[in-house]
Amino acid sequence: MTTRKKETFHDLGLGTKTGSSKVRSLNKDGSFNVVKRNIPLTERLNVFHSLVTMPLSHFIVVILSAYFVTNVVFASIYLLIGVEHLTGIQADSTFEAFVEAFFFSSQTITTLGYGRVAPIGTMANTVAAIESMLGLLGFAMATGLGYGRFSKASSKIKYSHHAVVAPYRDINGFMFRVVNPQSNQLLEVEATVSLSIKRKDSAQRDFFLLELERSKVVFMSLMWTIVHPIDDKSPLYGMDEQTLNALEGEFIITMKAYDESFSQTVYSRSSYLASEVKWGEKFVYIYQQEPGVIALDVSRMDETESAALNT
Amino acid sequence: MTTRKKETFHDLGLGTKTGSSKVRSLNKDGSFNVVKRNIPLTERLNVFHSLVTMPLSHFIVVILSAYFVTNVVFASIYLLIGVEHLTGIQADSTFEAFVEAFFFSSQTITTLGYGRVAPIGTMANTVAAIESMLGLLGFAMATGLGYGRFSKASSKIKYSHHAVVAPYRDINGFMFRVVNPQSNQLLEVEATVSLSIKRKDSAQRDFFLLELERSKVVFMSLMWTIVHPIDDKSPLYGMDEQTLNALEGEFIITMKAYDESFSQTVYSRSSYLASEVKWGEKFVYIYQQEPGVIALDVSRMDETESAALNT
Amino acid sequence: MTTRKKETFHDLGLGTKTGSSKVRSLNKDGSFNVVKRNIPLTERLNVFHSLVTMPLSHFIVVILSAYFVTNVVFASIYLLIGVEHLTGIQADSTFEAFVEAFFFSSQTITTLGYGRVAPIGTMANTVAAIESMLGLLGFAMATGLGYGRFSKASSKIKYSHHAVVAPYRDINGFMFRVVNPQSNQLLEVEATVSLSIKRKDSAQRDFFLLELERSKVVFMSLMWTIVHPIDDKSPLYGMDEQTLNALEGEFIITMKAYDESFSQTVYSRSSYLASEVKWGEKFVYIYQQEPGVIALDVSRMDETESAALNT
Amino acid sequence: MTTRKKETFHDLGLGTKTGSSKVRSLNKDGSFNVVKRNIPLTERLNVFHSLVTMPLSHFIVVILSAYFVTNVVFASIYLLIGVEHLTGIQADSTFEAFVEAFFFSSQTITTLGYGRVAPIGTMANTVAAIESMLGLLGFAMATGLGYGRFSKASSKIKYSHHAVVAPYRDINGFMFRVVNPQSNQLLEVEATVSLSIKRKDSAQRDFFLLELERSKVVFMSLMWTIVHPIDDKSPLYGMDEQTLNALEGEFIITMKAYDESFSQTVYSRSSYLASEVKWGEKFVYIYQQEPGVIALDVSRMDETESAALNT
Repeated sequence: MTTRKKETFHDLGLGTKTGSSKVRSLNKDGSFNVVKRNIPLTERLNVFHSLVTMPLSHFIVVILSAYFVTNVVFASIYLLIGVEHLTGIQADSTFEAFVEAFFFSSQTITTLGYGRVAPIGTMANTVAAIESMLGLLGFAMATGLGYGRFSKASSKIKYSHHAVVAPYRDINGFMFRVVNPQSNQLLEVEATVSLSIKRKDSAQRDFFLLELERSKVVFMSLMWTIVHPIDDKSPLYGMDEQTLNALEGEFIITMKAYDESFSQTVYSRSSYLASEVKWGEKFVYIYQQEPGVIALDVSRMDETESAALNT
Repeated sequence: MTTRKKETFHDLGLGTKTGSSKVRSLNKDGSFNVVKRNIPLTERLNVFHSLVTMPLSHFIVVILSAYFVTNVVFASIYLLIGVEHLTGIQADSTFEAFVEAFFFSSQTITTLGYGRVAPIGTMANTVAAIESMLGLLGFAMATGLGYGRFSKASSKIKYSHHAVVAPYRDINGFMFRVVNPQSNQLLEVEATVSLSIKRKDSAQRDFFLLELERSKVVFMSLMWTIVHPIDDKSPLYGMDEQTLNALEGEFIITMKAYDESFSQTVYSRSSYLASEVKWGEKFVYIYQQEPGVIALDVSRMDETESAALNT
Repeated sequence: MTTRKKETFHDLGLGTKTGSSKVRSLNKDGSFNVVKRNIPLTERLNVFHSLVTMPLSHFIVVILSAYFVTNVVFASIYLLIGVEHLTGIQADSTFEAFVEAFFFSSQTITTLGYGRVAPIGTMANTVAAIESMLGLLGFAMATGLGYGRFSKASSKIKYSHHAVVAPYRDINGFMFRVVNPQSNQLLEVEATVSLSIKRKDSAQRDFFLLELERSKVVFMSLMWTIVHPIDDKSPLYGMDEQTLNALEGEFIITMKAYDESFSQTVYSRSSYLASEVKWGEKFVYIYQQEPGVIALDVSRMDETESAALNT
Repeated sequence: MTTRKKETFHDLGLGTKTGSSKVRSLNKDGSFNVVKRNIPLTERLNVFHSLVTMPLSHFIVVILSAYFVTNVVFASIYLLIGVEHLTGIQADSTFEAFVEAFFFSSQTITTLGYGRVAPIGTMANTVAAIESMLGLLGFAMATGLGYGRFSKASSKIKYSHHAVVAPYRDINGFMFRVVNPQSNQLLEVEATVSLSIKRKDSAQRDFFLLELERSKVVFMSLMWTIVHPIDDKSPLYGMDEQTLNALEGEFIITMKAYDESFSQTVYSRSSYLASEVKWGEKFVYIYQQEPGVIALDVSRMDETESAALNT
């Protein structure tokens, strides 16, 4: 079997010794099934990264909370200084004064400044001057964060639900399909496919880079069927479905492309477990006959039909 | 003919089976002549991408509409709360009150805050505090979008209107010209030319990568004539105009360059159909004699003159 | 001589036929000594590019002028609507009214909104609502432009004033020095040197890529002496100073590096004419002995001393 | 020994002649232990770069100082014009008038504009119009700077505290460990390791690029042990700890990766002095057995245990 191994990654960054078996190294959505223990908080923390990558709903909650808390803090400061240093306050109780101060604070931090309530005297004016500048800087930061969030190119490459082992020329091939469902153009699309299998007598895993019929296309305007020909140099050569399942095979896919809309390089990852590979099936032909244009029925990208394998 | 094929792209991301014949795969402006059917809206949608790539006029309409609608919504809320919670309102009817509330809203969302009209009481103040923050966030987003729109490097490489097959050294060559009309410098310019021809007895197409005399230049300050020498390794070897037309040949051009002004890699695409290739013509010499500078008359980049082909 | 030419660029994007002789193709500051004629304005124009690359003083003038003109336009509109629709106007003449309207406009477009003057009535309010939004969008745009200007990595690689032909091992070498004077780190620095010489019997020029002792360094924290060894494969082999001058030789330098501070790839260009090459001189050693640190006296980077050439 | 040198960098951009010995060329944190003398201020200065890379605390001080100074300047101007041109000023002395003018200035530059104090007359209005626009531009700039600061991908790759020379297959290897402690994914991680040793009889240093067992991994989700096998082509071949110390060996590490969160290429550098290499030690195994996930105890990445070297 050694001679069949074209290239061996010793851990591919995923670790050769993956502890318990039956563990997937890459989740279906491309995230890593790994966890790092005992990293000091200060090394792990990256505020900007967190704010940019957290879900939109969390981001909104964070922004609104920060706004609310800041206004509470400044309202308290104005109250401490004394509401008599704010003109136009209409309040009969400390609570009402706090509420007025809270709204005055919100009008200051957003640089709204209606002026119905306005600071008078050095102390209140100083706090207001600081608050308005903090507000501008804060919203400047929010602008940057918002831009960071929106401008992150999100390559949503869609993978076929199953991979297949189908006849390919006069041998067989491991195949799956990818589609770019969005209107962004992906250019210079590269695919890398690795196979991870368990060593027979240990908990260790070996990683093999699979040679592809074509590892790069100039543009991916429609669909791309990625094919690994199972020739005598392939680690899959001579294997059948039972063997691959027994070895807990996992196919790890990495794709890289240039997203023209965002002028950015984007990456996408996915994996197929041995149980997600259909042997003796092939993908159906889904180009449609339409006048003057090349059409593709994306909703049928997962459809397969039976096909006798070459032996 | 097989031996002449240096490299065959099986679909180049454009599909080998292009349905009806007489279909162009790449439009003259570099967009793809393809359509994807049955993609769920949620997968296809990308709001940021749409806002960044839509025409400027649409973008302005979207922004103005959003501003108008938001003000209508907030004016309605202020009206529900009661206009007595806005100081200085001058209105004799509900409609006039709505109009005043509308303008108060616009002064709040832009953080203008003249103060002639100002909120009083907890409810109105709360809504105004929220609106002013939403306004800031919205305009922060608009800033990001605007920057995204403006900063997108737009490589407007100009292709000669026709390609030619002209004498080249002691053989012939397939040639076309490209010019960078803008003042941005394009560096490390790379060109890829593929030929797509119909298989004789089927609807399928083959793609051949054409070897270029030079596939990369360090800078493209003036003009570049891209040449594919038709030697015995070329798929065009031995072909004449009629054959190429019969095979529905299409030359697919991809260019890649580094735009120095935007510090971005840019791409450009175009194609020549067989009917857009002039056989036995060559491009005229358009460098001009001017003292102390190298000059080029770009308006004459399409001009050709008759030239007997080598046989 | 043909066998000595390792690689010939036929025009390097600079045109083989450079019209009049004695023309430099690349200016000392890296700009191209070329001009493109007869390009339609619409193809040449790129507002964002112009605003980002114009000198800072022009940029400020453009911004201030736009601010002034916009306020004049809006002041005129408010005057047309009637100054009675602005509260608090203090004016005895139309001119004074215009001035008040002008300042009201400036307070509106910046979303300052003191409120001493405020719009009243539908017309004036509508115009103010539009103006404040235009103001926000305009300043959003200015933010983007400003960021575009500031964030452009400006690689200011400094080239030695002269190149030299100096002894190198047991042959000679063409050498020049480059220094990164700024505190930005430049990584993966690549250099390309081409020689352009006139053909003996024509106005055409040939371009030769010169092989470098080392064309890439991992980082350029101090200085880099770039060396082209003049071995028997070099187009300079067997040439002397007179021959190179007669052939109007020009050395064209392109450098490429990754600027760590800006996370951007930057480019730099320069050229040496034959008359800017000192034969039989070598650069002096300018590293200084300082305890615990490696020091370099950048001010002496141009200094050379006599050195007998190998023959 | 010459035949063992696979590739020699003559200065690697660090200078072959490093003056005094016992000088480290690369500090542990990846900064360069170099200093450039006599660079004119104008060439060295890069305001944007300084503002983006200075520590956060300095940045805040710079912003606050600029805000304070600008308000002092404008307050002085309003005082010169005369406080009678500001409505609503409440001041009994020049100092109180200055304070009021200072706060009016702060309300103008932030476009807060309460309106309690407002300019009246051409002069004061003109200054206020200019100040508010400057304020917007200034904060626009601050937005850009803040975004520049936050969005700078900060690859905080963690290097093991020591490197080791440990048994590797049937020979030995130079090894160290790297970990990405943050949650950003690093893709296409490349490592370069160079060895710098003193020439026996001079102050000069030679640089050798060390061949790695694997110089690139597709992703680095956990830990990567970088190994240089000490075979007979290695400059370390036949060396022992004493020799390496005597030659003042320094291992210079450069890492390059694509940071998926920031869509940017990031770089990291570090170095090991000969005294930071443990001979005859190997790193301990720190993968943990956890159900359904691959776990790594990062806090133990520096742990080594004794291991007999192959001879």
